[in-house]
Amino acid sequence: MSRAYNFSAGPAALPEAVLRQVQAELLEWQGERASVMEVSHRGQAFIDCAAETERDLRELMGISDDYSVLFLQGGATTLAALLPMNLAGPEQTGDYLLTGHWGEKALENAKPLLKTRVVASDKDGGYKRIPARSTWQLSEDAAFFHYTPNETIHGVEFHDIPDVGATPLVADFSSSILSRRVDVSRFGVIYAGAQKNLGPSGLTIAIVRKDLLGKHGRNLPPIFELQNQSKNDSMFNTPATFSWYVVGLVLKWLKAQGGAAAMETQNRRKSELLYSAIDGSGGYYRNDVEPSARSWMNVPFFLPNAELDKPFLKEAEAAGLLGLKGHRALGGMRASIYNAMPVSGVESLVGFMGDFAKRHG
Amino acid sequence: MSRAYNFSAGPAALPEAVLRQVQAELLEWQGERASVMEVSHRGQAFIDCAAETERDLRELMGISDDYSVLFLQGGATTLAALLPMNLAGPEQTGDYLLTGHWGEKALENAKPLLKTRVVASDKDGGYKRIPARSTWQLSEDAAFFHYTPNETIHGVEFHDIPDVGATPLVADFSSSILSRRVDVSRFGVIYAGAQKNLGPSGLTIAIVRKDLLGKHGRNLPPIFELQNQSKNDSMFNTPATFSWYVVGLVLKWLKAQGGAAAMETQNRRKSELLYSAIDGSGGYYRNDVEPSARSWMNVPFFLPNAELDKPFLKEAEAAGLLGLKGHRALGGMRASIYNAMPVSGVESLVGFMGDFAKRHG
Repeated sequence: MSRAYNFSAGPAALPEAVLRQVQAELLEWQGERASVMEVSHRGQAFIDCAAETERDLRELMGISDDYSVLFLQGGATTLAALLPMNLAGPEQTGDYLLTGHWGEKALENAKPLLKTRVVASDKDGGYKRIPARSTWQLSEDAAFFHYTPNETIHGVEFHDIPDVGATPLVADFSSSILSRRVDVSRFGVIYAGAQKNLGPSGLTIAIVRKDLLGKHGRNLPPIFELQNQSKNDSMFNTPATFSWYVVGLVLKWLKAQGGAAAMETQNRRKSELLYSAIDGSGGYYRNDVEPSARSWMNVPFFLPNAELDKPFLKEAEAAGLLGLKGHRALGGMRASIYNAMPVSGVESLVGFMGDFAKRHG
Repeated sequence: MSRAYNFSAGPAALPEAVLRQVQAELLEWQGERASVMEVSHRGQAFIDCAAETERDLRELMGISDDYSVLFLQGGATTLAALLPMNLAGPEQTGDYLLTGHWGEKALENAKPLLKTRVVASDKDGGYKRIPARSTWQLSEDAAFFHYTPNETIHGVEFHDIPDVGATPLVADFSSSILSRRVDVSRFGVIYAGAQKNLGPSGLTIAIVRKDLLGKHGRNLPPIFELQNQSKNDSMFNTPATFSWYVVGLVLKWLKAQGGAAAMETQNRRKSELLYSAIDGSGGYYRNDVEPSARSWMNVPFFLPNAELDKPFLKEAEAAGLLGLKGHRALGGMRASIYNAMPVSGVESLVGFMGDFAKRHG
């Protein structure tokens, strides 16, 4: 056994205790005499597991009964198309704030479905900051306002919730859900792919204010109608049962760690450690994001020149530090330090970075 | 350890050897120092695993390079909506042959997207037979012909491939993929949810003739455009990596068993055993499907009266025979005997049925 520190952006590290439980009960789950992968989603054991996972998520995030909690397939990108279809008619407008790659993708998927407006964008600036609130050009009658609280590739994060008046906020929390406390009641929709802070890829969670559903006036295929999933406890068709079960275990682990508040403290500490190391490297390492918008979850950084990337990655892997290669859209390095990454992992990375800079400086 | 015979319709039994391998390498996969759930889908190890799974599927089914093999999320029901969007424009017609519940569902999901025609249906007859070919009212210019080779709930299966001329056949093979040899070149599209013969729920396979894609003339969200998945090796967005990996292990197991031909022999034998027991029970057990259309995969059957259902299920569970409750749409019992169900499991069921009939007859 030689598990390493895994800084992959997603699919990403899971708590080892969760993996050990999955392993222990893989052939026989609870009293079912079968694997959790083999039991019917309509059987009582899985229904109970699914319901408990939803209850735990509601408790951890403080989600009221005004919201449906959906466990869907397709990834956040699919939701980026399904949500505009479900929240508005084709003649209505969706406002989009762009602070990185994923905001752009969400916009692309919405464009064929309704009118869209880019409220503000830092694309020309290379996505290094959040455009000042005073510059946002909101529609007067937007059906929703979409933004990405944390941009996984560019490492730009909102540290508070934008105020756009009564327009429902729709937020892609894929890379920051449960990484800190969030006032869910401020949102119309929170959605997130599971594969960063919650579990394996293949499950997407949508927390949707119930009154927003079913008003689009479109003639949708029933499988695209989120209200059908809402009314059927996300079992309008066969859900991704194994992923749902693993998310349930991750949520139990999160509760045992102290929940979102404890994660917030730890994630703040981890990110401070890493940004301090970068800023204190005398310019050897570089993160280009405006300090007030730096992500706690994804820390992109660059070496003095791109020729050093390969030796950095090779030596990091040898030192047990995996998945540090930056996204192809940006290059350089990226350390994703989600909930399952312990402080010791970041300490180890910071130590390695200092050592590498000395040897290659 | 007391694993039982699991007759669940899906999620369904997996080969025990596959589960043992998953268990053994759950914390450290190959040389990755991480779980397969934790590694990036863009990393070489997963890319190799994904590509090998596709190669094995192509080999097992004899899929030529004229076809894309896609590994998608969303279940077969999502494909029932995505396929009409991708194969035809809104003014074109899709022909639908209905032989059970899932054909109906596919039609419902297509109706908002294009013109549809029900070519023939046995709905009024309770879905107990395949309407005679001579009664099918095909459109002259259908963009595709959709049918369900095996209806999981009603237990109606085609034992040959329908001839509809040059119209591309689109077939939902969710419950019978790889259960027998199939001439893929006769099809435009074969699609299947994984959770019956291939792996865990949360992955859907689509085998699509390449020339059929990209001609619909619609302005689709990019994530709904199957050609984008085709061009990106099903990694246009993050795929369901763990499910993909498990399907890969199931395919290796299938190859070791002798592939589709060996499964065909075994599945024929298993279904003959069970139908013989039903037909030879002196009317105690009853299957209503016309013998020529009886499914090899899903065998619905009824007891003399519904009051016997509960004791039957209870005693069956005590005897280590799980998941026999029929679908709520039909009632009664259902034994799903997919590839992973050994002959010994069916023998055990048949023995129990005889014994139960004697005690409660």
